[in-house]
Amino acid sequence: MEKEYAVIFKTKRQLPMPDAYIEMSHHLVERVSKLPGFLKIDSVADTEGRGISVSYWSSLEAIKKWKEEPLHLEAQKKGHSEWYLDYTVEICEILKSYRK
Amino acid sequence: MEKEYAVIFKTKRQLPMPDAYIEMSHHLVERVSKLPGFLKIDSVADTEGRGISVSYWSSLEAIKKWKEEPLHLEAQKKGHSEWYLDYTVEICEILKSYRK
Repeated sequence: MEKEYAVIFKTKRQLPMPDAYIEMSHHLVERVSKLPGFLKIDSVADTEGRGISVSYWSSLEAIKKWKEEPLHLEAQKKGHSEWYLDYTVEICEILKSYRK
Repeated sequence: MEKEYAVIFKTKRQLPMPDAYIEMSHHLVERVSKLPGFLKIDSVADTEGRGISVSYWSSLEAIKKWKEEPLHLEAQKKGHSEWYLDYTVEICEILKSYRK
């Protein structure tokens, strides 16, 4: 089996979410979807500003490139200084998976 | 660094959530918290029945034991046949993490 990687991004956002944040999120999803090595992203957010997003990748190199992508760097900066009260990023190798 | 593992559990639930489901969730969190090797769990659920839970573990053996724990087996059975329209389980090794 080819190796597969997941990036778990857990966030606590300020509420209400500013328009600039929502706009940036759309741009980022568009941008990341075009990156070689990106597979998919699943996100859930509750009404209290907490969110978990899991993105899936075919290599660690692709994850590194995304981390350094210019629009993403801009978002990281704003995220750190303004949008997120708290966040955690975990880079994982998927060892096994099953579904219903 | 000690190895650490994450189990990503993504679900699509039927709504409204039955009382038996909510009750079982509480019991499971209580039960899992006492298991050796369990570290913590973070869960987010939206208003449309979608959820992502990530539990953290210090070994793959502990994850295996939890999978076979009697109350958890009962929950898995009900989850599969009744509560979940869809779910995915991914067992991962955390390679790297950082936070705000």
